Amino acid sequence: MIGVVQKNSKRVDAHIREAFAAHGSATVHEAMGRINLMLPYLRPIFSGSSVSGCAVTVLLQPGDNWMLHVAAEQIQPGDIVVAAVTSPCTDGYFGDLLATSFKARGAQALIIDAGVRDIKTLSEMPFPVWSKAISSRGTVKATLGSVNVPIVCAGVAINAGDIIVADDDGVAVVPAALAATVLAAAEKRTSLEASKRATLATGVLGLDMYNMREPLAKLGLRYLEEQT
Amino acid sequence: MIGVVQKNSKRVDAHIREAFAAHGSATVHEAMGRINLMLPYLRPIFSGSSVSGCAVTVLLQPGDNWMLHVAAEQIQPGDIVVAAVTSPCTDGYFGDLLATSFKARGAQALIIDAGVRDIKTLSEMPFPVWSKAISSRGTVKATLGSVNVPIVCAGVAINAGDIIVADDDGVAVVPAALAATVLAAAEKRTSLEASKRATLATGVLGLDMYNMREPLAKLGLRYLEEQT
Amino acid sequence: MIGVVQKNSKRVDAHIREAFAAHGSATVHEAMGRINLMLPYLRPIFSGSSVSGCAVTVLLQPGDNWMLHVAAEQIQPGDIVVAAVTSPCTDGYFGDLLATSFKARGAQALIIDAGVRDIKTLSEMPFPVWSKAISSRGTVKATLGSVNVPIVCAGVAINAGDIIVADDDGVAVVPAALAATVLAAAEKRTSLEASKRATLATGVLGLDMYNMREPLAKLGLRYLEEQT
Amino acid sequence: MIGVVQKNSKRVDAHIREAFAAHGSATVHEAMGRINLMLPYLRPIFSGSSVSGCAVTVLLQPGDNWMLHVAAEQIQPGDIVVAAVTSPCTDGYFGDLLATSFKARGAQALIIDAGVRDIKTLSEMPFPVWSKAISSRGTVKATLGSVNVPIVCAGVAINAGDIIVADDDGVAVVPAALAATVLAAAEKRTSLEASKRATLATGVLGLDMYNMREPLAKLGLRYLEEQT
Amino acid sequence: MIGVVQKNSKRVDAHIREAFAAHGSATVHEAMGRINLMLPYLRPIFSGSSVSGCAVTVLLQPGDNWMLHVAAEQIQPGDIVVAAVTSPCTDGYFGDLLATSFKARGAQALIIDAGVRDIKTLSEMPFPVWSKAISSRGTVKATLGSVNVPIVCAGVAINAGDIIVADDDGVAVVPAALAATVLAAAEKRTSLEASKRATLATGVLGLDMYNMREPLAKLGLRYLEEQT
Amino acid sequence: MIGVVQKNSKRVDAHIREAFAAHGSATVHEAMGRINLMLPYLRPIFSGSSVSGCAVTVLLQPGDNWMLHVAAEQIQPGDIVVAAVTSPCTDGYFGDLLATSFKARGAQALIIDAGVRDIKTLSEMPFPVWSKAISSRGTVKATLGSVNVPIVCAGVAINAGDIIVADDDGVAVVPAALAATVLAAAEKRTSLEASKRATLATGVLGLDMYNMREPLAKLGLRYLEEQT
Repeated sequence: MIGVVQKNSKRVDAHIREAFAAHGSATVHEAMGRINLMLPYLRPIFSGSSVSGCAVTVLLQPGDNWMLHVAAEQIQPGDIVVAAVTSPCTDGYFGDLLATSFKARGAQALIIDAGVRDIKTLSEMPFPVWSKAISSRGTVKATLGSVNVPIVCAGVAINAGDIIVADDDGVAVVPAALAATVLAAAEKRTSLEASKRATLATGVLGLDMYNMREPLAKLGLRYLEEQT
Repeated sequence: MIGVVQKNSKRVDAHIREAFAAHGSATVHEAMGRINLMLPYLRPIFSGSSVSGCAVTVLLQPGDNWMLHVAAEQIQPGDIVVAAVTSPCTDGYFGDLLATSFKARGAQALIIDAGVRDIKTLSEMPFPVWSKAISSRGTVKATLGSVNVPIVCAGVAINAGDIIVADDDGVAVVPAALAATVLAAAEKRTSLEASKRATLATGVLGLDMYNMREPLAKLGLRYLEEQT
Repeated sequence: MIGVVQKNSKRVDAHIREAFAAHGSATVHEAMGRINLMLPYLRPIFSGSSVSGCAVTVLLQPGDNWMLHVAAEQIQPGDIVVAAVTSPCTDGYFGDLLATSFKARGAQALIIDAGVRDIKTLSEMPFPVWSKAISSRGTVKATLGSVNVPIVCAGVAINAGDIIVADDDGVAVVPAALAATVLAAAEKRTSLEASKRATLATGVLGLDMYNMREPLAKLGLRYLEEQT
Repeated sequence: MIGVVQKNSKRVDAHIREAFAAHGSATVHEAMGRINLMLPYLRPIFSGSSVSGCAVTVLLQPGDNWMLHVAAEQIQPGDIVVAAVTSPCTDGYFGDLLATSFKARGAQALIIDAGVRDIKTLSEMPFPVWSKAISSRGTVKATLGSVNVPIVCAGVAINAGDIIVADDDGVAVVPAALAATVLAAAEKRTSLEASKRATLATGVLGLDMYNMREPLAKLGLRYLEEQT
Repeated sequence: MIGVVQKNSKRVDAHIREAFAAHGSATVHEAMGRINLMLPYLRPIFSGSSVSGCAVTVLLQPGDNWMLHVAAEQIQPGDIVVAAVTSPCTDGYFGDLLATSFKARGAQALIIDAGVRDIKTLSEMPFPVWSKAISSRGTVKATLGSVNVPIVCAGVAINAGDIIVADDDGVAVVPAALAATVLAAAEKRTSLEASKRATLATGVLGLDMYNMREPLAKLGLRYLEEQT
Repeated sequence: MIGVVQKNSKRVDAHIREAFAAHGSATVHEAMGRINLMLPYLRPIFSGSSVSGCAVTVLLQPGDNWMLHVAAEQIQPGDIVVAAVTSPCTDGYFGDLLATSFKARGAQALIIDAGVRDIKTLSEMPFPVWSKAISSRGTVKATLGSVNVPIVCAGVAINAGDIIVADDDGVAVVPAALAATVLAAAEKRTSLEASKRATLATGVLGLDMYNMREPLAKLGLRYLEEQT
């Protein structure tokens, strides 16, 4: 699995992969049964971005960003690069030069289980990044990793071509084969939430809207009167 | 203590509980003798909020947000919900639907020793939250906790009705019985700080303003001349 | 080393120390051979600041900010105060009063391996701070530390008068004796990056611009054709 | 709450407080409804100890162990000293001299949300300690804390006289007023476990012993046949 | 993927899966190209164990150990249970009762990305466990997870039937399909190490044994004479 | 500072450097004024070792242990190798082969701000190591670092030839130039502690032995009578 670049032209249809962003990482991960969510230490370097697209996966070595250059050639418009490191590292693997290159190739965003730098410039471009750290610390180009092999990034297993959904709340991963099914489930959740929100805004309680009082009572929830 | 909802209509007088926000968490915690400050890993999900109000306390189970729905019914206008988990958890217990419900009931803010989601919507409402994490990860509704029982949130013991003071610097807790006393002490500190600030702005040193030179010398502080 | 204030009037020439800010912490740390970068847990309390200046070093005791008052007297215009604690601590050692005093003495910024408070006021002044934590928690004035002695702050050894370069990416330290050499190297790197950025923006790959294909092949990188 | 020593001669009856150790922290915390367990970062400095006794509580300042000396005078035979710090700290507050003193006064153990040192000697005495850290770092005696006031240690609220149950699994706290009730519940759990253990040892599954198959099926658990 | 138990009778041949333990996690992970090693926060609860066997995978919900009971039925002699949680959790999912059951079914060990309890009894049995935490904190049985589905445990993707190699240094995972190949590579490494060790023990330097002097010189390593 | 090996034959006299071990890291760091103690995350891989000796310093790159081989040649009998990494890393830089080589050269121990492996063998040799992590994860030999340059290890600045004092409590560093002075101060502390221990063992309180009652009263410590 080390030292390999898998060329991969398979991409989920554009209208499907692009539709996920509107639902957001929380709704999409719920639609999958509350799985496939990256660990919450991954944070956006600036707020307000919401993206979805197919993954170009990268396996990096600690303190070595060589494979990000190799990955650039595999990017197709709309892709999101997802990079893991073979060992925990906070170095600044990615900055404005690589961002310029990735953007020129059509990449939408980077998800990286390590550090990035040139935050100010990336925010101005803007080129959204979800990372574990922000660090000026530079890297070398000395050891092989891989591109488009299966990786684990921030606790989730990802294959090249899987769909990434990232926003201010986090990063969810949808296996390519389940894309249409999950999208349908996400759409259903989103449409249901609008009416719930309207009801709750009137002061109706979730206790009543979701009929929770009976199951709570069955489990033994007791209400104690005010202390006087 | 599990499976109980204490109805609690006792609230510190509005003019007292509302007056704390103007002083801020740092001044209020100093006024109590530098205690009752939540651990600094609790951070606001957006900056610039400053609130004070009475606590509705919630004890949650890991990965289970059921009791937040139960707590909603106990909220009175101006309240701040304070939620602890029986075991460390970063899941996203709270999002825009619950925020809509809490806001409709009059809640000012949420303090939660866990994660929240729908950050973008919460920022737009705005509904201020101080949390340990931001996470899309959803929760279930399967296990009882409690409402308005004594809890420990981020290192501080809190009872229902205690006053919460939260801003960009952190979250302080004032026991209800001490509210008036602590407020008076906070007001005194705030008024003293204005004149100190003016003096320091002229270039006068704290060393002189606070008469520190003598005690420092007594302890043996030595000044070494410039190396040439 | 405890209980000492070293008076120190040596400062690197203003035109040199001020020139570093334009290059940023990432470029400067690369120019030194990728060393002397503080650990990335130090973060700016607000984004967008970029400073460079000579260090006034401070060694603090846990929960005790007395030496910051002693340090204020040693500040010269343009200086950056760099504070370490003898044991890990997240307390709020520094707030708006000390910031007013430091600013009146001409300090540009504070780098502190501990916590700060009054974030809102510091952001409005503005007085930039890079810190390990934000915390309302106050400190005492009871135990001696030192000023302008050698310290280790966030993993880097620093002497009074060394140059600090801090921005959104982190904090780099340039030993005073190397200032001119490192500045020249940083300037060279900055000028080279502009042309690289222009080339990459056209879609040229780093693989080609840096002639990486041959060394990658020598190490055995294999390209696998698309799976069909 | 700062600067106070509450003399406290109330101790739960010896036969009750001593009986808890046989059940262990896990059983006791279950007997309370799975609450009042200290956070698992507290670890014993050596393995194999199992103690229960009444708490002498101590509130310490960061980097300052003065109140441990004050607490020594309040120790009665069989007591367990429980120490919290007003702000997170890993310093070595306690070593062989204090252990000698505590032991001479009859203390059984120390629970401390900070660091300790002289590990080798403490292990040889033996004087069991559950701590957050091991650190040579010494402390000063400069600032007041309190003894026998309510504290929060490692996430649990404790009053002087509460019962501490500590072993290799962790540290549980039983409020003094609930001691007899919780002990009875713990004894019941312990006696039930013996027969369960015997059954499981024969190869009977928990699925059958606890009648889990039906509720699992109701929730929809599906068994997929072997892949061939 | 939630709510599924995959029956799985495929096991790598006993003579292969058992042979890995002799080589250890370090050698095996090197033999795979330095990948598939679990993150080092997983630690054995007692030292000195060295095991290898086929994985029964379990996906648990936070604070809920129900699926460990379901997994027990799927254990075959020599298996190693590997459990992940859908969200980070340190609760004590596993204790002496489950260990008795697992052992009766023939399990060798447990690898769990969460907490365990009853450490003393597990050490006496002995039943080796590699875990993220030790915690008395109990769990509920309320929400479905899965058994023998693909999981990510401590940063590594694992399928049911993959080989686990665990010792005092950590936990490595060998995909079932690569078992024979990796074992051969591990054997080769182990045999080479013996002669290297003998050479180094005589005082021969790695610099000479590995012919490192020339490549170091080419990269520019300079030797400075002693300072006098 | 990168790419340099400083040959260094200066060693503090054997009778001085060897005498430190008897006093231990806690006493030695107190004798220096409570400074120069490495951060407590460095822990011994097995307990019971107590060493002192002169430092051979090593600066490593992330995931690259090449310089440990270079350092081996610079070891003199009784030395302690102290290794820092230019960026945080938990990889297993050191195992039984390097330990065999270091031991053959006369090294007493390794202090490393990273991970090590082959724990079982190192414990059997025994070759004591204080490290940040235990990890099977291997390293490469691709990038230059340095030997015997000034480094920062676990928060302390160290020069080649400085004295390291390490035991179960932690790791202290004594600058070579201060060796005799610090040793004398440590001896004084050690001899004083014996009589204090004897006094405390009789039940005399530190409050009385150290005459603390008066200063405590002056600061306002109040004793509250027992609650009845």
